[in-house]
Amino acid sequence: MALALGSIVDALGGQLHGDPAVRIEGLAPIATAGPEQISFLSNPKLQPQLAACRAACVIVAPAAQEAARARGACIVADDPYLYYARLTQLWKRAHAPARTGGVHPSAVVDAEAEVHPTAWIGPLCVVERGARVGAGTVLTSRVTIGERCVVGERCTIQPGAVIGGDGFGFAPAGGHWEKIEQLGAVCIGNDVDIGANTCIDRGALGDTVIEDGVKLDNLIQIAHNVRIGRHSAMAGCSAIAGSTTVGEHCTIGGAAVVTGHATIADHVHIGGGASVTGSVRKAGAYGGVFPLDEFGKWEKAAATLRQLPALRERLRALERQAAARDQEKT
Amino acid sequence: MALALGSIVDALGGQLHGDPAVRIEGLAPIATAGPEQISFLSNPKLQPQLAACRAACVIVAPAAQEAARARGACIVADDPYLYYARLTQLWKRAHAPARTGGVHPSAVVDAEAEVHPTAWIGPLCVVERGARVGAGTVLTSRVTIGERCVVGERCTIQPGAVIGGDGFGFAPAGGHWEKIEQLGAVCIGNDVDIGANTCIDRGALGDTVIEDGVKLDNLIQIAHNVRIGRHSAMAGCSAIAGSTTVGEHCTIGGAAVVTGHATIADHVHIGGGASVTGSVRKAGAYGGVFPLDEFGKWEKAAATLRQLPALRERLRALERQAAARDQEKT
Amino acid sequence: MALALGSIVDALGGQLHGDPAVRIEGLAPIATAGPEQISFLSNPKLQPQLAACRAACVIVAPAAQEAARARGACIVADDPYLYYARLTQLWKRAHAPARTGGVHPSAVVDAEAEVHPTAWIGPLCVVERGARVGAGTVLTSRVTIGERCVVGERCTIQPGAVIGGDGFGFAPAGGHWEKIEQLGAVCIGNDVDIGANTCIDRGALGDTVIEDGVKLDNLIQIAHNVRIGRHSAMAGCSAIAGSTTVGEHCTIGGAAVVTGHATIADHVHIGGGASVTGSVRKAGAYGGVFPLDEFGKWEKAAATLRQLPALRERLRALERQAAARDQEKT
Repeated sequence: MALALGSIVDALGGQLHGDPAVRIEGLAPIATAGPEQISFLSNPKLQPQLAACRAACVIVAPAAQEAARARGACIVADDPYLYYARLTQLWKRAHAPARTGGVHPSAVVDAEAEVHPTAWIGPLCVVERGARVGAGTVLTSRVTIGERCVVGERCTIQPGAVIGGDGFGFAPAGGHWEKIEQLGAVCIGNDVDIGANTCIDRGALGDTVIEDGVKLDNLIQIAHNVRIGRHSAMAGCSAIAGSTTVGEHCTIGGAAVVTGHATIADHVHIGGGASVTGSVRKAGAYGGVFPLDEFGKWEKAAATLRQLPALRERLRALERQAAARDQEKT
Repeated sequence: MALALGSIVDALGGQLHGDPAVRIEGLAPIATAGPEQISFLSNPKLQPQLAACRAACVIVAPAAQEAARARGACIVADDPYLYYARLTQLWKRAHAPARTGGVHPSAVVDAEAEVHPTAWIGPLCVVERGARVGAGTVLTSRVTIGERCVVGERCTIQPGAVIGGDGFGFAPAGGHWEKIEQLGAVCIGNDVDIGANTCIDRGALGDTVIEDGVKLDNLIQIAHNVRIGRHSAMAGCSAIAGSTTVGEHCTIGGAAVVTGHATIADHVHIGGGASVTGSVRKAGAYGGVFPLDEFGKWEKAAATLRQLPALRERLRALERQAAARDQEKT
Repeated sequence: MALALGSIVDALGGQLHGDPAVRIEGLAPIATAGPEQISFLSNPKLQPQLAACRAACVIVAPAAQEAARARGACIVADDPYLYYARLTQLWKRAHAPARTGGVHPSAVVDAEAEVHPTAWIGPLCVVERGARVGAGTVLTSRVTIGERCVVGERCTIQPGAVIGGDGFGFAPAGGHWEKIEQLGAVCIGNDVDIGANTCIDRGALGDTVIEDGVKLDNLIQIAHNVRIGRHSAMAGCSAIAGSTTVGEHCTIGGAAVVTGHATIADHVHIGGGASVTGSVRKAGAYGGVFPLDEFGKWEKAAATLRQLPALRERLRALERQAAARDQEKT
């Protein structure tokens, strides 16, 4: 199935330079697109690739319009990357069978759960007693929504995700651990995407809260009582420990870990692999991973690192000696 | 459904100061508890919040009794946090329908598996040939117990956990990998809790062993031949590589990683995010993560870190010069 | 069920010194093997254990043959570890019921999926529309193969793995995130093993590719558009971010993280827990984790680390002073 360039701009806007009847067979990156595909140029660094691009049409920003028209057909849009995102959506709607609401016969939905008629509960999902799933939400397959947990509207949850497992709460009791029953639930807003095998634990007393528009990648751990603010995004394998609040419009890099009982301000960006050991109160970009090196060099740097406080003391001693000598001279 | 204060102390002990007929509608933290809720004070730093707490009743230690009684009703208990843990259990028993033994019709239990009549095998679980599940154990939903694996009594396993996947064993064979079949199993003791999507691999020859009372959070990886000692606890996203033994009463922080073939002594506490690259033979608290910083500062510190062995040499050279000068003078 | 020593060498080769009629009841490590078990010696450091080993037979390299024969029966093989690997396979074939092709009745396989008659689709798996599963491949249980994803021949996929979840792609759009539909798929070669709860995302436009012979442990994240070269192996909890290419014959240690849009050369070995923040263009072994230490010492080293660029400046200042003094003297 193909889309005509004219039907693309009819649906998504933008200014087409070229024949609206040309039919597009697919989307591809600028370096590999063939003559029946459409591509996009969002990174100005890639503009030199434009001349050699074989695509039927390229989506470009106004600044690249001249170069693009010299090459062939183009669509001019203010934000080519966003235009590309919307084109993928248009493409999917045109090519995949429309998902209608319903419950796959292999899913296990409790009689006391509420599933909106336009939501889709995919194969082998579990929706427990008192859970609610909102309009237009899709549980793809093998997703668990625990007791009393709420998922808003237009959310998509990838396979294997567990919403509302028990939070990890135990009180020490003379050498063993006594379970703290997790009496809260999970509350997920609208337009939230959750990745494969990601886990969001129910709260101990209140709820774990994922606000509107949050995007979570795969294999993420969200512990009990956490709150993630609106439109924040977390990459794969990252984790937030218990009772931490993450602000709005934050990004957490892959495999980054945020400690418990911390507060992360709005618009904080944590680099991949970083360990956040306390609150971050100021917007900005933060990072911290040990630099990769050849194995032997790393071992040497790591060994020296342990001596660092001692080296600092030795440096101070030398500085004091030098200062004493200078004083002597005068 | 509500619980009277009197029924709480009847069940859990403690000394009630206040009207036993007062009915409690829920549990809440001290800062947010309303007049129909019960709260607890376990962290002495929070004692200043006591006066303003609106809860119907507060569980306190003997040291806080005076301040608590000045405010209103209280229950005095030696360990308020443990009391709170037991209260959550009482609350759950009173409010959730009792879990009885059985197998959900959607679960797949092999005819040669043994499931105790008081165990519960939840929706869409798999219990393979020769596996055994002990009395009172709960597999919540979508849990796999592999061939010949044994789960003890009173365990709870959260959704998506995989007990008895193959250990990761391959022998190099002229450029490709030859599978080492994993002939062992997993043996889990009594009173073990296992989190969502956590994986415990079967042993290569012998068994991977999780001893009594161990608590594992979500998304944890336990490799083949590992042994975790009694009452040790591991937080989310942590991992233990193959053939490592972890002692009793240890705690492993979130996302911490322990290398293979290592021995961790009893009562060792590993901080979140730390990499344990060898054995830890002495009880105590250990840590090691790169400190978080503004991105530019981290980059600078990381770059300098690589030069650290060279800096140390330069420091030594200066020290030798200074020593030589001192000697000259005398 | 037992195997005679003679039948072992008939099947696997090697030179038997001892009675071929002796029957073996199992395999065990050299330190714990009993008189009815067979063991192997691949690590020369363990050779001193040979004399005390109680095994019925030990598999050894030619160099250890003399010591082994002095002890009792042995099989001499060029690579005892590889021989052991093949023996586990022989053992499993002899003892486990042969897996035949088919689809477990609880699995959900789309009518438009193609499953080879010799492949096995285990309990509670999902195989979506247009997916293909090759000859001899085993989906153990609770595995998802997404739309249009392809799995080659003789692969084994452990429980809970998700092949073809959506890649994590969103374009920023004035404060919220706009979904980039993931139009590609996942293409997995032959002889690939995939661990429990591991996730491999579908590509954004093209495919995510796992080449022949790749071995992936549990809880691994492979993001969209990644390519993993032939016979590379990744340990548990490691992760590769989007659009990165990993070469052939690489190994990635447990919990190591590789950034996106990077290129890792062939024969690169990344140590456990390391963060790879850019391309690695040269074969070799690389590492980088903060050294573990007693908690207080770590805190001190970490605090000093932040001052490292300043310490370097102070060292330079001292060096300049010393150089100036030396010049003065001359």
